[in-house]
Amino acid sequence: MYPNCVRNLIDSLKDLPGIGEKTAERLAFSILNFEKEKIDTFANSLVEIKNIKRCPVCNNITDMDKCYICSNDKRDKQTIFVVEKPKDIVLFEKMGNYNGVYHVLDGLISPLEGINPEDINLDNLVKRVKENDVKEVIVVLKPSIEGETTMQYIKKILDKYNVRVSKIPIGIPMGTDIEYIDSMTLEMAFEDRKDIA
Amino acid sequence: MYPNCVRNLIDSLKDLPGIGEKTAERLAFSILNFEKEKIDTFANSLVEIKNIKRCPVCNNITDMDKCYICSNDKRDKQTIFVVEKPKDIVLFEKMGNYNGVYHVLDGLISPLEGINPEDINLDNLVKRVKENDVKEVIVVLKPSIEGETTMQYIKKILDKYNVRVSKIPIGIPMGTDIEYIDSMTLEMAFEDRKDIA
Repeated sequence: MYPNCVRNLIDSLKDLPGIGEKTAERLAFSILNFEKEKIDTFANSLVEIKNIKRCPVCNNITDMDKCYICSNDKRDKQTIFVVEKPKDIVLFEKMGNYNGVYHVLDGLISPLEGINPEDINLDNLVKRVKENDVKEVIVVLKPSIEGETTMQYIKKILDKYNVRVSKIPIGIPMGTDIEYIDSMTLEMAFEDRKDIA
Repeated sequence: MYPNCVRNLIDSLKDLPGIGEKTAERLAFSILNFEKEKIDTFANSLVEIKNIKRCPVCNNITDMDKCYICSNDKRDKQTIFVVEKPKDIVLFEKMGNYNGVYHVLDGLISPLEGINPEDINLDNLVKRVKENDVKEVIVVLKPSIEGETTMQYIKKILDKYNVRVSKIPIGIPMGTDIEYIDSMTLEMAFEDRKDIA
C-alpha cells in the first residue's frame, strides 16, 4: 500500500523501542514533510553513528581514540564511578560537580541470563585500580538482584587493593510521596538511615 | 557530552512529532545497539524517501510516475474518495472492499489560516470529474469547521456536473460509550439519523 521506501522507513522506525506500526506510520509521514536538508542530516547521523566505538579505557562511547572524559587531563583519574551503560554517564555529567572518571560495565552479573563476572568488563576495572592507584570506586547500579550481586562482586575483587568501594544509598527520590514507594525500597532505605546532622 | 554524530542523531529524532530530548536520547542509544546492516537500511530508507513525489492524477505519494492505484486498470475511475492527506488512503485501502480511486487535497479551506479554495488542489478534482464522467465523489474529511466548509465548497463546484457528491455521516465510533461523545457530535448524528431497517 505504501511505496517501498516508505514501507522500509516505517519498518526501520518500528525497530525503535516502544514504537509500533501506527506511531511508525505517523513518524514516517512527518519525515515526508521534512525539508530535504533535514532528511540528509538525519541519514548522515545514522551513517556516522556506525563509527562510534568504545573507549579502550572506560568503555564509554566515543568517536575518537579515547573518550572526551578519559582524554581530559584535568579529570581526577583516581576516582571512578562504575555504571551499567554509557547513557548513565550523561546523567552524572549533568550534575556538573563530578570531576572523576567512569567505568562502564557490559551489563550486570545475572547467572539466570548466563551473564557471568568475566563477561562484564571487570578485568579492566581491576587493572585501572591497580595501575592508577585509585582512591575510590563508587558503584552506581540499578537497585535489583543483579545490581546488588554485581556491587558485592566488585567489592570482593577490589578488597585487596587500598581503595574505598562505595555505593549510592537506596532511598526516596526528591519530591516523591512515600505512598508511591514500594516496601522493599523503604526497608532498604531504613537500613541505610543516617543521623540528622 | 555526546560524540557529535550521537548529538546530531538525537537532534534529528527530536524533530519527530511527540519526541522530546529524553525519548530521543533513549532511541539514539537503542540505535547504537542495532546491527550495522539495520542502520544502513534505516539510513537508506531516509535517502530514498527524498524521491517520493506526488501522483499527478490524485496527489497520493508515489515513487513511480503515477501512484499504484491510478496505474491500476482494474480500479473504477468513476468513483472518487476525496481525502485530506495521503495517509488517509491507507485507512480506506485497509477496508479492502473499495475499488474506486482517490483525490488527495492539499489541506482544508481555512480563511483564518489563509488557505483558500484555490490552494487545495480542487481544480484537478473538477478536471477529473469532467474528463472521466465520474459518477460519485465521496468527500471524507475531518468533521470540523474547515472540513464542513471544504465539503460544502466541493458540493458547490461539482453541482453543475452530473455527479453524486456524498459524505460519511457523523456518528459514534464502534464500541465507544455514548458518555464519551461530545454533544455537538450527538446533535449532528441525530440529524443524520436513519430508519432502522
